[in-house]
Amino acid sequence: MSDKIEWIAVDWGTTNLRCFAISPEGQVINTAESDQGMAAVNEKGGDFEGTLLSIIDHWLDPGRNPPVIACGMVGAKQGWQEVPYDEAPCSPRTSLTKVNTESGVIDVWIHAGVKQSEPADVMRGEETQISGFLAMEPEFAGMICLPGTHSKWAKIVDGAIHTFSSSMTGEVFDLLSKHSILRHSVGSDEWNDDSFAEGVRESFEHPAKVLNRLFSIRARDLLQQSDKSGAKAYLSGSLIGLEMAGVLENLSIEEVIIIGSPGVSERYQTALASLNIPTRCFSSGDITLKGLESGYRIINC
Amino acid sequence: MSDKIEWIAVDWGTTNLRCFAISPEGQVINTAESDQGMAAVNEKGGDFEGTLLSIIDHWLDPGRNPPVIACGMVGAKQGWQEVPYDEAPCSPRTSLTKVNTESGVIDVWIHAGVKQSEPADVMRGEETQISGFLAMEPEFAGMICLPGTHSKWAKIVDGAIHTFSSSMTGEVFDLLSKHSILRHSVGSDEWNDDSFAEGVRESFEHPAKVLNRLFSIRARDLLQQSDKSGAKAYLSGSLIGLEMAGVLENLSIEEVIIIGSPGVSERYQTALASLNIPTRCFSSGDITLKGLESGYRIINC
Repeated sequence: MSDKIEWIAVDWGTTNLRCFAISPEGQVINTAESDQGMAAVNEKGGDFEGTLLSIIDHWLDPGRNPPVIACGMVGAKQGWQEVPYDEAPCSPRTSLTKVNTESGVIDVWIHAGVKQSEPADVMRGEETQISGFLAMEPEFAGMICLPGTHSKWAKIVDGAIHTFSSSMTGEVFDLLSKHSILRHSVGSDEWNDDSFAEGVRESFEHPAKVLNRLFSIRARDLLQQSDKSGAKAYLSGSLIGLEMAGVLENLSIEEVIIIGSPGVSERYQTALASLNIPTRCFSSGDITLKGLESGYRIINC
Repeated sequence: MSDKIEWIAVDWGTTNLRCFAISPEGQVINTAESDQGMAAVNEKGGDFEGTLLSIIDHWLDPGRNPPVIACGMVGAKQGWQEVPYDEAPCSPRTSLTKVNTESGVIDVWIHAGVKQSEPADVMRGEETQISGFLAMEPEFAGMICLPGTHSKWAKIVDGAIHTFSSSMTGEVFDLLSKHSILRHSVGSDEWNDDSFAEGVRESFEHPAKVLNRLFSIRARDLLQQSDKSGAKAYLSGSLIGLEMAGVLENLSIEEVIIIGSPGVSERYQTALASLNIPTRCFSSGDITLKGLESGYRIINC
């Protein structure tokens, strides 16, 4: 490659692998994205090093080994190499573990995830996003929400992850909308904002009734009391409202930072707005890069 | 057949078909059980009449047509013939609709289900069980719980179903334990009573935190804070406790009647005992027969 690469950032989750070639000035000069997430690599025998090299090989000049900084499930037990968790309260700029590579072509470091003992919880990858956000706003204190399959809420105090909690919101939504009896009622791809807001409000106010609220989606459909376009939004709102009832139970919150992909972030922003909680949204892609950059600075010291 | 059959009771749900030949004295003189529930019949083209005849044909004497009284999903839109719901508040001894048979060999009546407008809810089959229980205890007033895939709680006032609510407890348990990330943690068939009680108590006291509580099962497993034998029981307890938090929210309850299969009834009994609520359990099979008998008396008047 003509442009000199200072280091390589790798965001390696369960389902995706994203690589970024970074210049000495900190600019992204090349990117590569692949569906070879941790799960896919494991299915093909677990050759993480070969998978990474096949994607970034043409970025490498002979005799030069720009360091690779990775985060995400690649550091899990089922990943490339198990990296022990740091334990909260701790800095989101977690420790880095050098991988034992076989080729000798690249040097790879993986970000530690963060664990919490009571209540038991874990994250891998989100700590890097939080680190990226705090690199931009080091004085921030308050709540950061990272919506997704397993949504995380982290309370930031003095630049550290003080406590955090994960909720199975995204996965439960996926299971219910695709594999439960509700699949007959939420099949439409239409979206209804009022139904979403209704689901959020009802679950936030009466979280205990959620298992009944879910069945009511089917009943309303059978009794033709609702058009189907509202059902999926109501289901989504019911689960996000439940998550928020659990997280915001005893908190008065001035602002929530949302870090995620645009679609799901917007839902969380809308839900929080209906609870009169202001938000600022950041793209998880950009923020992850900033977090990996913080990691690179550690190993480059 | 040598014994005379007065009528035939049929419990026809989504997954099973159970038939009972009843003597003039009200005794069960023959039974037949099949996996030809509504779903299986529909998969093979929807010949409900042929399916039923193939099972009870050898019970029938030429020229005699003992009436058939059926309940359950056989009366749903996807069933043999859609039977309109009665609307709560109403007697659980619901109206009966005569099916338009093609063979002329049998006369079949199907129990109406019960619907509720606000909150929207439906039942098909459980009304017959409630009717069977009230045939034994006509003066009963209070709560009847029918645990299962979609658990029902019915409030009985003056011999009628006053209100009722369904919860997706059983289906959510099934999805989470078999198809979510929790399947890695709840794979053991062992059961731990203490973990079940812990799940019930935590969800009953803090229902809003259930989505986080579910993730904690995975986290505890990853952090090796619990042995796997407790995980399935904790998951079950968490969901049943959540259901009860929703149903029992504003009620002081003297006693709950549980009608179900032995395994699941025992879990609900244990959960309610931990909340200091006395229960009496009845087998859903016996009770359904009593309910169908009440239906037979209506068409035989």
